[in-house]
Amino acid sequence: MTQAAYYQGNHTIRHGPGEIIEPKRGEVRLKVSHCGICGTDLHIYHGAMDARVTMPLVMGHEMSGTVHKAGDGVVNFTHGDKVVVMPLAPCGDCPACAAGHSHICHSLNFLGIDTPGAFQSYWTVPAYTLHRMPEHLSLAHGALIEPLAVAVHDVRLAGVKDGDQVVVLGGGPIGLLVALVAREAGARVLVSEINPYRVELAKRLGLDAINPNDADLIKLVMQRTSGAGADIVFEVSGSQAGAAIMTELLRTRGLAVVVAIFAQKPEVDLFRFFWRELRLQGVRVYESEDFAAAIELAASGLLPLDDLITDIRPLSALKSGFEDMERGGRVMKILLEL
Amino acid sequence: MTQAAYYQGNHTIRHGPGEIIEPKRGEVRLKVSHCGICGTDLHIYHGAMDARVTMPLVMGHEMSGTVHKAGDGVVNFTHGDKVVVMPLAPCGDCPACAAGHSHICHSLNFLGIDTPGAFQSYWTVPAYTLHRMPEHLSLAHGALIEPLAVAVHDVRLAGVKDGDQVVVLGGGPIGLLVALVAREAGARVLVSEINPYRVELAKRLGLDAINPNDADLIKLVMQRTSGAGADIVFEVSGSQAGAAIMTELLRTRGLAVVVAIFAQKPEVDLFRFFWRELRLQGVRVYESEDFAAAIELAASGLLPLDDLITDIRPLSALKSGFEDMERGGRVMKILLEL
Repeated sequence: MTQAAYYQGNHTIRHGPGEIIEPKRGEVRLKVSHCGICGTDLHIYHGAMDARVTMPLVMGHEMSGTVHKAGDGVVNFTHGDKVVVMPLAPCGDCPACAAGHSHICHSLNFLGIDTPGAFQSYWTVPAYTLHRMPEHLSLAHGALIEPLAVAVHDVRLAGVKDGDQVVVLGGGPIGLLVALVAREAGARVLVSEINPYRVELAKRLGLDAINPNDADLIKLVMQRTSGAGADIVFEVSGSQAGAAIMTELLRTRGLAVVVAIFAQKPEVDLFRFFWRELRLQGVRVYESEDFAAAIELAASGLLPLDDLITDIRPLSALKSGFEDMERGGRVMKILLEL
Repeated sequence: MTQAAYYQGNHTIRHGPGEIIEPKRGEVRLKVSHCGICGTDLHIYHGAMDARVTMPLVMGHEMSGTVHKAGDGVVNFTHGDKVVVMPLAPCGDCPACAAGHSHICHSLNFLGIDTPGAFQSYWTVPAYTLHRMPEHLSLAHGALIEPLAVAVHDVRLAGVKDGDQVVVLGGGPIGLLVALVAREAGARVLVSEINPYRVELAKRLGLDAINPNDADLIKLVMQRTSGAGADIVFEVSGSQAGAAIMTELLRTRGLAVVVAIFAQKPEVDLFRFFWRELRLQGVRVYESEDFAAAIELAASGLLPLDDLITDIRPLSALKSGFEDMERGGRVMKILLEL
């Protein structure tokens, strides 16, 4: 029995039989094991990306699974191999690809958004998207590799180094993963998050976390840095409040990293950028080396990945997952198991 | 006969006798030769910085002159030496100074703003602010060293390199100097400026320049970069229009350099920063190495500095200089000669 979850527009998910697509040359068919629900999936479910997606759409791009069938020409993978997918199919021909930035290709095909994803029993993908999982890494943890690779990319591009004071604005799944990866890089990390459950969870992970509605974030950061300010602020909230405070928190020549997807253009204090010679860097998805590093970090056992998984549900519970995420209460990462 | 120009608030400049202050240990008294009028001076004249400055204020910080008397302990300078002043007196004790960024000291004393400047016959300053001028560099060109050092700093921090496509938004004195220095660094430079006189002047300097009201700047930059976008955009206009277009002009991972002083917080497209992994860097004043490089560049004769000097007037004409700058017509840099 195969199954799939189809987004049909208008807050509607249909659960039904899935397809088994024959892998073409250079492709691999996977048996999906686990797939996380991403904020982007919720965004699609809300209809915010209806102009971009083709319906019915099988979403899902945070997956783990095993190779079911390798197409012609695929020599590195065989039936039963545990793998994760880096869900990016670049065009290879645009200025971004030509400049070596194919992960942000101008015509990027993001698997699970622009073409079908992993909320289905079997998923056929280009073999070049596959990364092998170590045998001892669980398939549930494997489904966290994709968001972990985002965090690895963000921390790498930010150049976080030993002893840096880092502030993470926003303690959802990506924010907490950024905080954990920055901590592994040797940084002192402070997470700012307004959802009390997420603040408590961050503390349970051993992170320093505050609710900026209860405490003076700027004062706290200045106290911890002898008045200098933070070396790096990761903006993961996508809010005007986050865009406003990031410039207040930074030391001279400090770096603001824009991780969040800003739906509106916020006001930004460009005078402060001038005055303190601040820097800003946008970061998006990951490159192959980030996926490899994320797998290594997950396999090391150093990260409290189990604590980030709120629940593991059957695929048929996708809609209930969206509804829990909408309520925004005691939710971090929900995985679907196929 | 000594003279000085005193800002007394309320758009008032008083021209009167100047002081001859005895240099203390480590100080030097200069005989001022030339001093340019900066946009910041105009800003002060408009009353916009009345909360910061002490009146009556002798403004002026873009100067050249000769050593008149060296105080005790000054061994590197003697009567008659041609010099320029890097007008920054840092506290030496704040987090910025501790981090090696004393040029943007948290308690910076900017000579000519926070303490008296060079719109007077004799000016007494700390000896550490002095840079020696080569004998063959004219004192008029010497008065351009300070703004040129701004441009050198901006281009250095931006990391402009051979072959880069650079766009400069705003073709006033700093914008044109940034464009000229970037060209010397090997960049292909395009200046965007709405004042027709300044566009013509930029062209006379051999720069590529357009009026964005007459031409499609984005289309032009895309044509010249095969659709990739510019490597670096210098925002020197301080306008919402400039802040909006800078993100449209850049290639993936391109750099926006905030040179201008933004009086208002503009809306900034942080989504675009995320989407294209763009970078932004604020830049302010200069460091000692920039002053040294600016002197070397001015002395090389490679820059068309004469063409940037609109007029040389006596100190008593300071107010007429402000009025010409206010009208914003056929003005680039006005120098006062003492």
